[in-house]
Amino acid sequence: VSVVGPAGFRASGIAAGIKASGVPDMALVCTEDARPASAAAIFTSNRAVAAPVVVSRENLRQTGGLAVGVVLTSGNANAATGRPGVEAARTVCAEVAGSLAVAPEHLLICQTGLIGVPFPVHLVPEAASSLVEGLGCDQGAGERAAEAIMTTDTVRKEALVVADGFSVGGMAKGAAMLAPDMATMLAVLTTDAACDPGTLRDLLRQAGDRTFNAITVDGCTSTNDTVVVLASGQAGPAAPEELAAALETACATLARQMVEDAEGATLVARVYVGGALTDEEAHRAARQVADSLLVKCSLNGGDPYWGRIVSELGSAGVGFELDRVSVSYGGTEVCRLGVAVEHDEAAVASHLAGGHVEISCELGLGDGSGVVLSNDLGYGYLDENRTTS
Amino acid sequence: VSVVGPAGFRASGIAAGIKASGVPDMALVCTEDARPASAAAIFTSNRAVAAPVVVSRENLRQTGGLAVGVVLTSGNANAATGRPGVEAARTVCAEVAGSLAVAPEHLLICQTGLIGVPFPVHLVPEAASSLVEGLGCDQGAGERAAEAIMTTDTVRKEALVVADGFSVGGMAKGAAMLAPDMATMLAVLTTDAACDPGTLRDLLRQAGDRTFNAITVDGCTSTNDTVVVLASGQAGPAAPEELAAALETACATLARQMVEDAEGATLVARVYVGGALTDEEAHRAARQVADSLLVKCSLNGGDPYWGRIVSELGSAGVGFELDRVSVSYGGTEVCRLGVAVEHDEAAVASHLAGGHVEISCELGLGDGSGVVLSNDLGYGYLDENRTTS
Repeated sequence: VSVVGPAGFRASGIAAGIKASGVPDMALVCTEDARPASAAAIFTSNRAVAAPVVVSRENLRQTGGLAVGVVLTSGNANAATGRPGVEAARTVCAEVAGSLAVAPEHLLICQTGLIGVPFPVHLVPEAASSLVEGLGCDQGAGERAAEAIMTTDTVRKEALVVADGFSVGGMAKGAAMLAPDMATMLAVLTTDAACDPGTLRDLLRQAGDRTFNAITVDGCTSTNDTVVVLASGQAGPAAPEELAAALETACATLARQMVEDAEGATLVARVYVGGALTDEEAHRAARQVADSLLVKCSLNGGDPYWGRIVSELGSAGVGFELDRVSVSYGGTEVCRLGVAVEHDEAAVASHLAGGHVEISCELGLGDGSGVVLSNDLGYGYLDENRTTS
Repeated sequence: VSVVGPAGFRASGIAAGIKASGVPDMALVCTEDARPASAAAIFTSNRAVAAPVVVSRENLRQTGGLAVGVVLTSGNANAATGRPGVEAARTVCAEVAGSLAVAPEHLLICQTGLIGVPFPVHLVPEAASSLVEGLGCDQGAGERAAEAIMTTDTVRKEALVVADGFSVGGMAKGAAMLAPDMATMLAVLTTDAACDPGTLRDLLRQAGDRTFNAITVDGCTSTNDTVVVLASGQAGPAAPEELAAALETACATLARQMVEDAEGATLVARVYVGGALTDEEAHRAARQVADSLLVKCSLNGGDPYWGRIVSELGSAGVGFELDRVSVSYGGTEVCRLGVAVEHDEAAVASHLAGGHVEISCELGLGDGSGVVLSNDLGYGYLDENRTTS
């Protein structure tokens, strides 16, 4: 169930010493034969881009959408590290590429962890050879890679979608600083379907918009967000719509795992908005509700206070008429046409006490709809984020 | 130090029974002689506008900017209450106007509390006469009015600015659902300066933008936000620039009191952004930092993690070049030109341990600057907002 699922990929995960705790912190996902695969990536929209994003963009541009693999490190984001940070990211690519006997620009790089701390580049030469030595196509190798990119994540995040004649595998990390805009967090997807880089990029963008860009944990967009997909082609060409569907399913699985593992959260909330003027407005309104500190507090306390939901819909900057709005929890309508409605309070209480809350809002204005996955705000989020040391 | 400070105003505060706890929940601020004063107001930009906002807008329009006074209730926001809610707000104005022997459209109304709960209009007739009977011009009367509009506020919020020949008084409430956009929370300002309604409106807008619209507690814009100013004219005409300055000082004092009393907060953070392309971009960037859940968590833990500040500046959607950015805490630079800089760590730790944190960000691109007042996110905010019952 991971990046080594599709034919033609190897993976590796080791402890390079970037994390003081000595747990795994460096991963590699690459083609089995070390030959370039079609590659595409989407990157954070944050203008404070981290060094690995700069270097991966450069390399993809230089190769015209080809890559042998992706190196990933955790424990240090290599962001706000200036020129030396960019050099460090290039060194990581060069050292790993040397061990693989490929050109440096054929490697992409993703890094995650603390911002503003110089990257310990002296660890790289030894780590690079261990990383390449550790490569394998077995399930264990995939798991080691997925584990090595975890930071505050409590579980590995992996996916495998088996389609007709090909498959899509993936791994990801992310539990906070999660409010994707164009792209999010770190994720690597692999497929054995053959696909040219341009098409692959279009498919990834579409899948990312519908999955990673439809989750929010805390409204903070990271400096390092990157999603990469590699297509080995070993299974031959796939119908684009089938590849698109499999890719979207794999991304959706990983996105959901991130929300489920969100720092300090006790539940997943699916916020649906229908009846908006456009899909874009529905998505914006759903995100406004999903990001709301007050709504997240209510969810944590199991409080069916829909007034906060209506207030967020009203301040989302979308077409809105209060006397047309309805809100339901788990299918039980609590607000109809803008006012409270008699309802089964026990049913709502029991729904809110479960681990999965469905909030459905109807704006009554048009056909636009959208969904954002979110969660509650618990004491654990504060515990996790009050101090980084 | 309140709304009765300027000549020509009376105030009152009583327990009308809206709050089950029996604490004061209804206030009135009006002219001493029950004659109309120049009046202006700014209202929430939330499209889910509450009934009192609808009625106050109507009345102001009908009178062309005149009002005898403002009735305020707490404990029930009368928002998302439909047509009956609007009728209830009109009844409040009519009953109080009856007791004052003035026309109903000469009263404005502000309400705050829970959203979506029908307003207990049956309490109004008795409350209206008690409210008018309780009117006084003494300090105690002003305090009773300021106390009757509190919800989760832990202290009264009052202001008095004595200028050359006139004065400006004010009271306000607000401790959460505070992210003003055009207007915010409830606030009533009074002045004995003479001023026509049109000028008064311009001056209020300007003062509001620089004060109430430059604070944020939780990024949530309320359905009921209203700021009202009444000018009795008893002190004669004031120079517009002097009235503008006094009004802004009074608003700033009240805005600051709201941030200081923010639910669960342990400190006030002043976020300054300079060197932006425009003042508007500086303000937007400062707000992005001030609203960030992760920055607020760091502040609560006294953690000098500036990486989150840079990340928020980068995702604010404003002109931004990482290698030109500098960040300081309390005057100690921790990030220079986009990277960590050696600094006095003890000085930073001690500054962050105080009750007032100064975060200063320089973007190095232009002359735009802006300030937003905010606070930290503490366990107390969750305690307060997990359940409303």
